[in-house]
Amino acid sequence: MDYLSKIQTPRDLQKLSFEELDLLAEQIRHFLVENVSVTGGHLASNLGVVELTIALHRVFNLPEDKLIFDVGHQSYVHKILTGRREGFAHLRQRDGLSGFPKVRESTYDAFDTGHASTSISAAYGLCKARDLQGQKHEVIAVIGDGSLTGGMAYEAMNNAGRDKSKLIVVLNDNEMAISKNVGSLSQHLNRLRTQKGYLRSKMLVKQSVARHPKLTPLYEAADKVKNRVKYMLVQGILFEEMGFTYLGPVDGHDIRALTKTFNEARKLNEPVLVHVTTVKGKGYAPAQLKPEEYHGISCSHSSAKSWAGVFGESLEEICKKDPAVVVVTAAMLDGVGLKDTSIPASRIFDVGIAEEHAVTFAAGMSQGGLKPCVAIYSTFLQRAYDQIIHDVCLTGKNVVFAVDHSGVVGEDGETHQGIFDTSYLSHIPGLTLMAPADEEEMKQMLPYAFGLNRPVAVKYPKGTCPRVTEWEKRPELVHGKSALALEEGEGIPVAILSVGDRLGEALKAGHEIARDGARVRIYDVRFIAPMDRDLILELLHSQKLILTVEEQVYTGSFGMQVSAIAGEEEGVCRVLPITLPDEFITQDSRGAILKDLGLDAEGIVNVWKKAKETIK
Amino acid sequence: MDYLSKIQTPRDLQKLSFEELDLLAEQIRHFLVENVSVTGGHLASNLGVVELTIALHRVFNLPEDKLIFDVGHQSYVHKILTGRREGFAHLRQRDGLSGFPKVRESTYDAFDTGHASTSISAAYGLCKARDLQGQKHEVIAVIGDGSLTGGMAYEAMNNAGRDKSKLIVVLNDNEMAISKNVGSLSQHLNRLRTQKGYLRSKMLVKQSVARHPKLTPLYEAADKVKNRVKYMLVQGILFEEMGFTYLGPVDGHDIRALTKTFNEARKLNEPVLVHVTTVKGKGYAPAQLKPEEYHGISCSHSSAKSWAGVFGESLEEICKKDPAVVVVTAAMLDGVGLKDTSIPASRIFDVGIAEEHAVTFAAGMSQGGLKPCVAIYSTFLQRAYDQIIHDVCLTGKNVVFAVDHSGVVGEDGETHQGIFDTSYLSHIPGLTLMAPADEEEMKQMLPYAFGLNRPVAVKYPKGTCPRVTEWEKRPELVHGKSALALEEGEGIPVAILSVGDRLGEALKAGHEIARDGARVRIYDVRFIAPMDRDLILELLHSQKLILTVEEQVYTGSFGMQVSAIAGEEEGVCRVLPITLPDEFITQDSRGAILKDLGLDAEGIVNVWKKAKETIK
Repeated sequence: MDYLSKIQTPRDLQKLSFEELDLLAEQIRHFLVENVSVTGGHLASNLGVVELTIALHRVFNLPEDKLIFDVGHQSYVHKILTGRREGFAHLRQRDGLSGFPKVRESTYDAFDTGHASTSISAAYGLCKARDLQGQKHEVIAVIGDGSLTGGMAYEAMNNAGRDKSKLIVVLNDNEMAISKNVGSLSQHLNRLRTQKGYLRSKMLVKQSVARHPKLTPLYEAADKVKNRVKYMLVQGILFEEMGFTYLGPVDGHDIRALTKTFNEARKLNEPVLVHVTTVKGKGYAPAQLKPEEYHGISCSHSSAKSWAGVFGESLEEICKKDPAVVVVTAAMLDGVGLKDTSIPASRIFDVGIAEEHAVTFAAGMSQGGLKPCVAIYSTFLQRAYDQIIHDVCLTGKNVVFAVDHSGVVGEDGETHQGIFDTSYLSHIPGLTLMAPADEEEMKQMLPYAFGLNRPVAVKYPKGTCPRVTEWEKRPELVHGKSALALEEGEGIPVAILSVGDRLGEALKAGHEIARDGARVRIYDVRFIAPMDRDLILELLHSQKLILTVEEQVYTGSFGMQVSAIAGEEEGVCRVLPITLPDEFITQDSRGAILKDLGLDAEGIVNVWKKAKETIK
Repeated sequence: MDYLSKIQTPRDLQKLSFEELDLLAEQIRHFLVENVSVTGGHLASNLGVVELTIALHRVFNLPEDKLIFDVGHQSYVHKILTGRREGFAHLRQRDGLSGFPKVRESTYDAFDTGHASTSISAAYGLCKARDLQGQKHEVIAVIGDGSLTGGMAYEAMNNAGRDKSKLIVVLNDNEMAISKNVGSLSQHLNRLRTQKGYLRSKMLVKQSVARHPKLTPLYEAADKVKNRVKYMLVQGILFEEMGFTYLGPVDGHDIRALTKTFNEARKLNEPVLVHVTTVKGKGYAPAQLKPEEYHGISCSHSSAKSWAGVFGESLEEICKKDPAVVVVTAAMLDGVGLKDTSIPASRIFDVGIAEEHAVTFAAGMSQGGLKPCVAIYSTFLQRAYDQIIHDVCLTGKNVVFAVDHSGVVGEDGETHQGIFDTSYLSHIPGLTLMAPADEEEMKQMLPYAFGLNRPVAVKYPKGTCPRVTEWEKRPELVHGKSALALEEGEGIPVAILSVGDRLGEALKAGHEIARDGARVRIYDVRFIAPMDRDLILELLHSQKLILTVEEQVYTGSFGMQVSAIAGEEEGVCRVLPITLPDEFITQDSRGAILKDLGLDAEGIVNVWKKAKETIK
């Protein structure tokens, strides 16, 4: 019996018995594995929430009730149940289904998510809007235990828990964030899981957790009984202390149990936390065994080294030579290329989804005499903008930021594009901002960055790390100086300033422009901040045209900054910055987006051809 | 006996008996009141930590042991005890003593602070640096209950609590942040305070707090006994669950008790939280009764309206007309001008020191149909840069940001200057960024912002709100358009584009420049984003010189953006942006800083005079 095709709207779930819902769950799993293995996308996290999502839709009445998925990559089942099953053929493709909830995609999506730990804040906002407008409906935030390590989730619980507004937070506890879960919260959840078994069997708790000695006499007296009683009775107390009524833990793969608990939550008229335990990758053996690898499935495989891999290798070398170097990441050990390095575990700090803390923690280590590197994706480092200013740059600390996934990331879409980093980093006083063109330059820049003894950020994209083979004699890095990579042709003098990995495309374009009647000079910018002002001034007076190329929105870009120098000079040549537009960029492959937006060789040549007409 | 003058270094405290230390505390209080009433500064918070700071210095061995004050405005006593007493004559003045800890000022200052909630992250960093380098010393973070509402403090506790590294967190619980404390954490602390009394008298706890009914049978059975036992025994459990050993609460004005508890904390070899209760403003009647007013004391008093006051009035009017308008602030109810308005309490949300949550909470309310305003100081809004992008602008939500304290703030120094907001806001796609020139314009802009139905930020400075009386016929706001405020003189055509409250100075300068052989046009920029590109292009072709004036670092400024337009055009006039330099700005009065950095009429005229030479 094909139950899946019968579900056109979530109301159709009401017609099915629990036995049929179990079969539906199996069919959804099958559908997910089949589709995601073709299109790519998040598999393990969605396999883990099949029953949870079915139960939510069975109990709550969407779209009147509002359901927010934290991060949102676990919303595939929700999309399947809300009329978007056919969209999975084009999941994460141009004009296709998004991998995240989008209000513009469906009225069943109550709030757009993408970055972690936002759901409780947003849900509490929806609650207050409901209350103030005299409406009656449920608001449910589904948040993973990983996202709960993010400070803003705590800020939101602290705020919402004090209020009497009805709000349901479903804690999807799968014992792992994207990477291994981190922190005492994780230990707390572990204890809750353990207690469940104890309580069910109604046995006295064994004191498996050794408690610290209490020193005040007050404590000494109460300690023994306290510990014994505490672990039996205070299930969920962390959440209860924050003002939430705690329900659970409930088996997240048992639709009956989930339905029962959600119905209980529904009846309460206060902030409620429902603790659901799930298995990431449930029902699909490879994903269940190695959920980290199946977290996001990419369909294009390449044997070439990734930027993250090159970073990991380079940092490994640096760590071997300098025992003071340590590295901090935020639940992205694998993603930033640290997983398979030989860097000792004692020098790698995965702080969980906690970018703000990550940066100030690194600042503290710097103050204490270490040389910390903070490796975080560009779009997530946005979370720590203030800490970069306030705790690192204001006091000129030697923290090296490895800004991974800088530029267009592709299929994850708007929320994940790292297109603002030059704008949000280059104006910070005292911060050196560099971008390597290729593998060799990355291996030059990273040791250089650690040698500077001041705040540095090195930004580089997602994906394959190129090798620019035609530029053989690679000059040494000189602070704030760009390097000439090509000088070719005769005719109109034109300079191209290329930022980061655009160099390969700039060189290709350069050859063609040289054939088209120009004397082309191509510079590898290397330093976005401080800029090579001397070179730029020289070029403004010696060239007929300057082009700049980079993966960044225009406002605040390197190119805009070069244009501004031109605008403040008398009688100099024009600057034409080639950047991304000042817009959010929707999902498509990285290559297609860059081509579409003119950031490849063809795009550069086109700008030249158009500008050529006006030069005389 | 004058004990105060005998304390040259903290070691001198060892020579005094507890009775003498009590007398010293009184002398320090007297010293604080006398000095701060002359120089201005934070009084109440420092009066509250006199005994606490004495006890910390008595027990710990600075500078070997490291002491970090969260926020840092409560470090005056620490400064007095560490050889900086005489500096108080020039507290918060140019080249004088900072109102915050500064490593460059003293080896006794272990880490620079200023923004809230950073201390545990930084302290944990110092701990790891100590451990990895095989050092032995204590690291102590002193954090107020207000700062503990910030998410990054939680991120840090969650991270540090799991580790076995020795770290001491002193919770200075004075029951208020800068404004009234917010959230369930505050309730938790209240319960701890209450329990203390109960436990002391060894009475059974009265169930004063009504608990919610539990619905699962499991809970029903355990509920009664649970509640009774819980409130007796689980003192500090929130912190214990996070992995910290809890000591306290201890009376923060009892040096003996404090010394005893700190000595206990010292003996433990794990993360410890010492809960200290203090009274803000202790010992000084006016400050103790109204600590909010005495939080920061300003020495210049003015009867003119403040920008914050004008904002509050304007918002009040808007709220009267539109019941959908609500306002969110982050522990700054008074500071942003909301305290004395008639806006109903149900529509004002003070979320505590939680800027990230504040913004996404507002985004949720917007999604739910309300029209939220988020009123936060420029430098603190930096915390929510990602949330502004990700949760508000990406989906074009109608959230109005009131960016107070934009520009130079003066005496609070580097950490508090709001000099980056145009750089971090103007590149965000879809965000309208405005700056009113004076009171009348603020009253135009705020209703306009709410009418736009998309993301808007309105930025304005600290202090007195001017009235530009000479510009009478105030044109209506037109989206993205600047307004001509003055056209005067004959001769060289010069345009001045003035951003925000610089208009008064620009007009003064304009008259002088007009007398100096120029036909001057002065524009009130009004819209930083979107820019008035048509006007700028017209001016670039019609003028001989364009000056821009704004309180912002250069990189990413409005002026730089105008320069960039010029640099991308052929054969246009020069642009000379008058901005703040790309540097952190140290403490001095706001007026003196603006004058020094050439942002007054004289500075504008000087730029003109220099540029005039080159125009022919």
